[in-house]
Amino acid sequence: MKLYDAARAPSPRRVRLFMAEKGLQNLEVVQVDLSKKEQHSDWFKGINPLGTVPVLSLDNDIHIAESSAICRYLEELQPEPNLLGGDSDEKAMITMWLARVEQYLWLPIHESFRHSHAFFKEQTQITAWAPYAKQQAEKFMLFLDNHLSQHDYMSCDRFSAVDINVLCVIEFARVIDLRIDKLVNFLAWHERVKARPSYLA
Amino acid sequence: MKLYDAARAPSPRRVRLFMAEKGLQNLEVVQVDLSKKEQHSDWFKGINPLGTVPVLSLDNDIHIAESSAICRYLEELQPEPNLLGGDSDEKAMITMWLARVEQYLWLPIHESFRHSHAFFKEQTQITAWAPYAKQQAEKFMLFLDNHLSQHDYMSCDRFSAVDINVLCVIEFARVIDLRIDKLVNFLAWHERVKARPSYLA
Repeated sequence: MKLYDAARAPSPRRVRLFMAEKGLQNLEVVQVDLSKKEQHSDWFKGINPLGTVPVLSLDNDIHIAESSAICRYLEELQPEPNLLGGDSDEKAMITMWLARVEQYLWLPIHESFRHSHAFFKEQTQITAWAPYAKQQAEKFMLFLDNHLSQHDYMSCDRFSAVDINVLCVIEFARVIDLRIDKLVNFLAWHERVKARPSYLA
Repeated sequence: MKLYDAARAPSPRRVRLFMAEKGLQNLEVVQVDLSKKEQHSDWFKGINPLGTVPVLSLDNDIHIAESSAICRYLEELQPEPNLLGGDSDEKAMITMWLARVEQYLWLPIHESFRHSHAFFKEQTQITAWAPYAKQQAEKFMLFLDNHLSQHDYMSCDRFSAVDINVLCVIEFARVIDLRIDKLVNFLAWHERVKARPSYLA
């Protein structure tokens, strides 16, 4: 197994934290240099034609792209400590929260960055989308803050993949100057998850 | 168990097809009237505060929102015929394709509709986003058409939840006048999945 990683990007970080929580180590890691647009190179397109990281390449030449799919694979490989749910109810609730975080937090933040930052200035940018998407993400952050007033973790009242994904997304959100500074429950949750050894993965 | 459904909306349709493929029937179904914005009513917000359909309510009062989470639950409830993968490799590949379809096909089409159609004119519409998002969806449709030149189905060379989701999305895409008419492999796939008894669910 080989992980195609990019040290500073938020999506590969999800996988690194997921692996750290499971104690999965000693995997071969290949860094893909996004600043040089290496993810769009011919050699990497052979691994993932859509040009995204992370990718987990298996020894049987299957290439798993998308962090959600890599985590699903790793959960099958090493079920415990489970991060995608124990029983059917938990699996459903964690899948629900993962979908919400993807649609209402990650994508708006990613798109706001993509359509406002100078790094992408050579591609089409719909500049009116950037502040709108940022506002949508802000709304969902309020929703999560309210949820966290009743719960210590994002789903099932215990640490899961949902906490990993939210952590990676909100720390990335600094690039569009979106912060949780005024959200007291969110801040308390942030301290809670930052205290875990996996945080530095 | 009770399913909160909306007969003409694309996301609940995913769940109905998923259930039909598994032969799951006789479930109590409650129609939520989107034309009357019933999904934003107080009674429905008690079931899903984010105001989206479908929702599957379990007898233990757990409310599962998001079609991906409902399908995950139903797959646990009745594993075969599996639609989310048999072994670990299949589960990973189907999860990967589901994530791609969500991000590169469903969301752009949904957003293009949301930001151009008169039905949403009382909400903020970023009109410049609509054609851009449509174009992104078109690009991914070409990618899928190319994929289908080598494969009969979207993932794992057999029918899965990925085919269900793409089917629901591309038939919905007519609302923004986006069609697969010129994509020969996509059209052949469409005939293949339309021939299944689940199509009318």
